[in-house]
Amino acid sequence: MRTTTAWQSTGGSTVLDRVTIERRDLRADDVAVRIDYCGVCHTDLHSIHGAEGRVVPGHEFTGVVAEVGADVTEHAVGDRVAVGTIIDSCGTCAMCVAGQEPYCFEGVTLTYGPSTDGGYSREYVLRADFVHALPDGLDPVTAAPLLCAGISVYQPLKAAGVKPGDRVGVAGLGGLGHLAVKFAAAMGAEVTMLSRTADKVADAERLGASGLLLTTDEAALAEARGSFDVIIDTIPVQHDVGPFLRLVGLDGTVSVVGHLGSLDLAVMDLLAGRKRLTSSGVGGRPDTREMLAFAAEHGVSADVELLPSAQVGEALERLEAGDVRYRFVLDLSDLD
Amino acid sequence: MRTTTAWQSTGGSTVLDRVTIERRDLRADDVAVRIDYCGVCHTDLHSIHGAEGRVVPGHEFTGVVAEVGADVTEHAVGDRVAVGTIIDSCGTCAMCVAGQEPYCFEGVTLTYGPSTDGGYSREYVLRADFVHALPDGLDPVTAAPLLCAGISVYQPLKAAGVKPGDRVGVAGLGGLGHLAVKFAAAMGAEVTMLSRTADKVADAERLGASGLLLTTDEAALAEARGSFDVIIDTIPVQHDVGPFLRLVGLDGTVSVVGHLGSLDLAVMDLLAGRKRLTSSGVGGRPDTREMLAFAAEHGVSADVELLPSAQVGEALERLEAGDVRYRFVLDLSDLD
Repeated sequence: MRTTTAWQSTGGSTVLDRVTIERRDLRADDVAVRIDYCGVCHTDLHSIHGAEGRVVPGHEFTGVVAEVGADVTEHAVGDRVAVGTIIDSCGTCAMCVAGQEPYCFEGVTLTYGPSTDGGYSREYVLRADFVHALPDGLDPVTAAPLLCAGISVYQPLKAAGVKPGDRVGVAGLGGLGHLAVKFAAAMGAEVTMLSRTADKVADAERLGASGLLLTTDEAALAEARGSFDVIIDTIPVQHDVGPFLRLVGLDGTVSVVGHLGSLDLAVMDLLAGRKRLTSSGVGGRPDTREMLAFAAEHGVSADVELLPSAQVGEALERLEAGDVRYRFVLDLSDLD
Repeated sequence: MRTTTAWQSTGGSTVLDRVTIERRDLRADDVAVRIDYCGVCHTDLHSIHGAEGRVVPGHEFTGVVAEVGADVTEHAVGDRVAVGTIIDSCGTCAMCVAGQEPYCFEGVTLTYGPSTDGGYSREYVLRADFVHALPDGLDPVTAAPLLCAGISVYQPLKAAGVKPGDRVGVAGLGGLGHLAVKFAAAMGAEVTMLSRTADKVADAERLGASGLLLTTDEAALAEARGSFDVIIDTIPVQHDVGPFLRLVGLDGTVSVVGHLGSLDLAVMDLLAGRKRLTSSGVGGRPDTREMLAFAAEHGVSADVELLPSAQVGEALERLEAGDVRYRFVLDLSDLD
């Protein structure tokens, strides 16, 4: 086994300890990645709070290839790379064959989980197939959040077939939402921020939106009925999707990617105009690489606040309090 | 005003009375239709039970043009015609302009409702625009149910883009379900009946299905995971759509057209495989006419039991008891 340094939570605490953890020795098809930057995702908080034992979070990181297994030809030492939320899948089910590994029928191996330590660490060892080259032009700090937040919104925009001129609404302006605005605008869509408060308008416009629709304004909602093609709903708590279904037009799509629990639905909100309610997860390897290439070409990256990794506790607490624009990234190069 | 004979329910009773009702004098753009046959839909039962006053049900009928208004050029006296569930809409909103009148933002005028008497009658007067020519080759008895049940399943199949070789599941084998099997098979799909009981297999295969999947068989469900492109869910009562979402594959569609109330949903069932949950109503005029042409070309029509109109009460009671294969049609020509 090899060892590396990591930030570890124990017993649900957001005060993380600097510890030494083990990584497996490289198999023939493995790559060791020296992690430089790792984004801080809401899922990290959920995992910490839900853990009875220890957890090393982190599943959107960038770094450099430190070592490769004997059979690895795709990556070489020194290459800039990125890793997302999954590191293995069965490879043989219909979803894997379709390049949609996150939906693997056998279940995926997550980048961190009960038996896996995540990216809040200096080194990671995983199968080369799940390591993505970081395209030239992408900054490793602001690109790190693309590997979870970014692909999570690129996926539904692509699946809904968003094209230039389409009218896209984005609900929720956090880690996912701010990237949804950027990606949709980069795809040529006319983007509107959907928000309960008007104070987000300046930020939304800076990110690429053409305006903001106040979802507490019943008259404005009624006037905007049917005026969207696609709505990406990144609101992270349970809420009524009916208003969003009424905002999209014939055959319009509402994709719920923020709240992943249960929801109540009036079928009539689907019926009237043949609306489609959908969701999606992080993309498979082909879509992830396509997303990275698109981001590099169109200059899409996350708005981040870079913190020394020792401030991971502060990042988690401020994230919990909603005090982040729009993603914390930990500088793990300081672990040397 | 003109008068005609009709079957009328009062105070929620399924024992209907033969009465004389009034129809408006023809406007310049009106057509008077002599109704010969009218299907008996579950909605008729709902309307009867929900009515405090009188109601003349019926919204899927065929007949012959008896008279036309001065400006009507599309239809002539003696033409075979059909009328569905709506008889007017605003004509100017985005949905009407798109030929999707049932989703009219201003609300449609239903063929029967609080202020309109329906098709359980000998004559109907309505705008010519909402009268459809009955194509040669369609029998007016078995074609009548196409105007509600038929278009209600043709719509979601078309909206989902069903094409030859697609794997379509149909849940619920009633008025809608049996036509969903026929239409999907006529579109070249491989159709599977989804049912809680195996006794429907012979009927399903006779209608065009290649087999039946027993939805109470957990092992069979697990094996069939992801093996459908589209599922048309015609089950008329509240139920869990999760199993159907798990049966469709990547980007698969589940269209709920039977139960139009509320439903609970686990977003993870949408996320895993980017599933689409949707619904649709009766089609607009273009789709209705396309459906009729398709039915004529492919020999699709309803399996019906034709009853003298005086037996309307028996039809309603047997429909309520589920004793119908698969649609009652009333012979209103006997009202002369």
